[in-house]
Amino acid sequence: MQLPKHVTLKEVGPRDGLQNEKTHIATADKVQLVNLLSQTGLNYIEVTSFVHPKWIPQLADAVEVLQAIKRQKDITYAALVPNMRGLERALQAEVDEVSVFMSASESHNQSNINKSIDETFPILQEVVNGAKAAHKNVRGYISTVIGCPYEGYIQPEKVLRVTEKLLEMGVDEISLGDTIGVGVPTQVESLLEELLKRYPVENFAMHFHDTRGTALANIVKSLEMGITRFDSALGGLGGCPYAKGASGNVATEDLLYLLNGMGIKTGVELNKVLEAALFIEQKLGKAVASKQMAIARNERSASQI
Amino acid sequence: MQLPKHVTLKEVGPRDGLQNEKTHIATADKVQLVNLLSQTGLNYIEVTSFVHPKWIPQLADAVEVLQAIKRQKDITYAALVPNMRGLERALQAEVDEVSVFMSASESHNQSNINKSIDETFPILQEVVNGAKAAHKNVRGYISTVIGCPYEGYIQPEKVLRVTEKLLEMGVDEISLGDTIGVGVPTQVESLLEELLKRYPVENFAMHFHDTRGTALANIVKSLEMGITRFDSALGGLGGCPYAKGASGNVATEDLLYLLNGMGIKTGVELNKVLEAALFIEQKLGKAVASKQMAIARNERSASQI
Repeated sequence: MQLPKHVTLKEVGPRDGLQNEKTHIATADKVQLVNLLSQTGLNYIEVTSFVHPKWIPQLADAVEVLQAIKRQKDITYAALVPNMRGLERALQAEVDEVSVFMSASESHNQSNINKSIDETFPILQEVVNGAKAAHKNVRGYISTVIGCPYEGYIQPEKVLRVTEKLLEMGVDEISLGDTIGVGVPTQVESLLEELLKRYPVENFAMHFHDTRGTALANIVKSLEMGITRFDSALGGLGGCPYAKGASGNVATEDLLYLLNGMGIKTGVELNKVLEAALFIEQKLGKAVASKQMAIARNERSASQI
Repeated sequence: MQLPKHVTLKEVGPRDGLQNEKTHIATADKVQLVNLLSQTGLNYIEVTSFVHPKWIPQLADAVEVLQAIKRQKDITYAALVPNMRGLERALQAEVDEVSVFMSASESHNQSNINKSIDETFPILQEVVNGAKAAHKNVRGYISTVIGCPYEGYIQPEKVLRVTEKLLEMGVDEISLGDTIGVGVPTQVESLLEELLKRYPVENFAMHFHDTRGTALANIVKSLEMGITRFDSALGGLGGCPYAKGASGNVATEDLLYLLNGMGIKTGVELNKVLEAALFIEQKLGKAVASKQMAIARNERSASQI
């Protein structure tokens, strides 16, 4: 197998994970979670979201969290920003990097952002311009790059079209999201073949959800195609709150197990990620979905016998 | 990706799954489970085990189950057989195919079979001879082909050595088991490269446990190397009873989702496997570990809102 020697993990648990949890997490606990993640060797943490609290009340304390975390100098602390009002608050809170987002699927974009794809571009352009004026890098999430809950399979051409526009407007990195976790490796291959014909691999990160258990298989295929940046969330956080057992993002600790086993370096310590996952599991009051946490729980209970 | 067009699933849930469950399952329910599986399109079901009930009391009713199931003519109903006493009972119960088993790792073989690897060969040879005399095919399981709980990583040479002996003694197919679910795709590739230098791909089936979430990734790599036979268990049954959440065999329904998505035919209907998984989940009184069952549960509860 042809594999990269080193990959970068982008931890999205505090944002993409916690925005989907019903349990109230105190601001101090979110700060503590980010501080624990800052000790793991990760160099990118998406801390929160500046989407209006009407839509995501879970992250209404975005400014407070970003201001209270203990920052490490080699770590990028990022946040999701939907519009200029969000950008203002994010800059006020001294965010390091800004993430904008939209969908490859027209109907998912409409339901998520309440606008058509074409209506979304100028809003993101404004945010990108504002972020660049403040000397911030910008990441662009594209959702539903393989499947959409309304439209089914999404042709790579649709993802290409949104990718082109985002790169034209100055986005530094595209995160390609299998938002509903339906993808399989053949589809990942078709998508990346199409995109990598036009753009260098450094433009892309992959963002897989593990709803159907295919995330690690999709990541291996992405690695074989040269991708070196992956989003993940500690504990596999991020499932829909009503989808019991249907996990969300691929778990950082399960991805680390895979990468360590294949000899791919990340600089991230699995044991320290497990400490952070144990912390948030206790605050959420429920077992998180990762395999590594299940094994750790089992070892703890075995040692008590 | 180079992938086979068709693969065969070998359902091991009634044996490898139920032998690890603490909950008592009535004989009639085991029979009903196998009958439900017989309606799914599967053409191979490992029904039970003739290991002495002292070791596996869960399957003490092996003869009764094999005699009571409603057999479909295109389905092979197999059972695990450790020795001549087990073979006698299996033949009396009119088993279609016999599975023998041992480990690639010396210490796992010792702890599991209470014999060294070299002491095990003559015992299996006797079973193979007896089964062949009764015109039965024989399958040979090799456990711990990637990792062993005592010895860690297992070199492919050790697996090759056991493979050679089993094929020499007349075993028709080798099932290569990542018994403790530690493998990653690079290790699967190293193992299969070594074996496929010497033997045709038709000699092998892969048997992955999903303890660390890598089973589907390992299966994709195996498919890319030409393997067309995979063991799986409905509901992902087969975890150690005390390892809460640490799943066992790769779930038949999750494997089907992957294969269907990649356009690989199996002849097995996912919905019917889910019906069988729902049946055994109710009998076990606990949620099984597969992603597809989690999604199905979620859809049921959503439809009740």
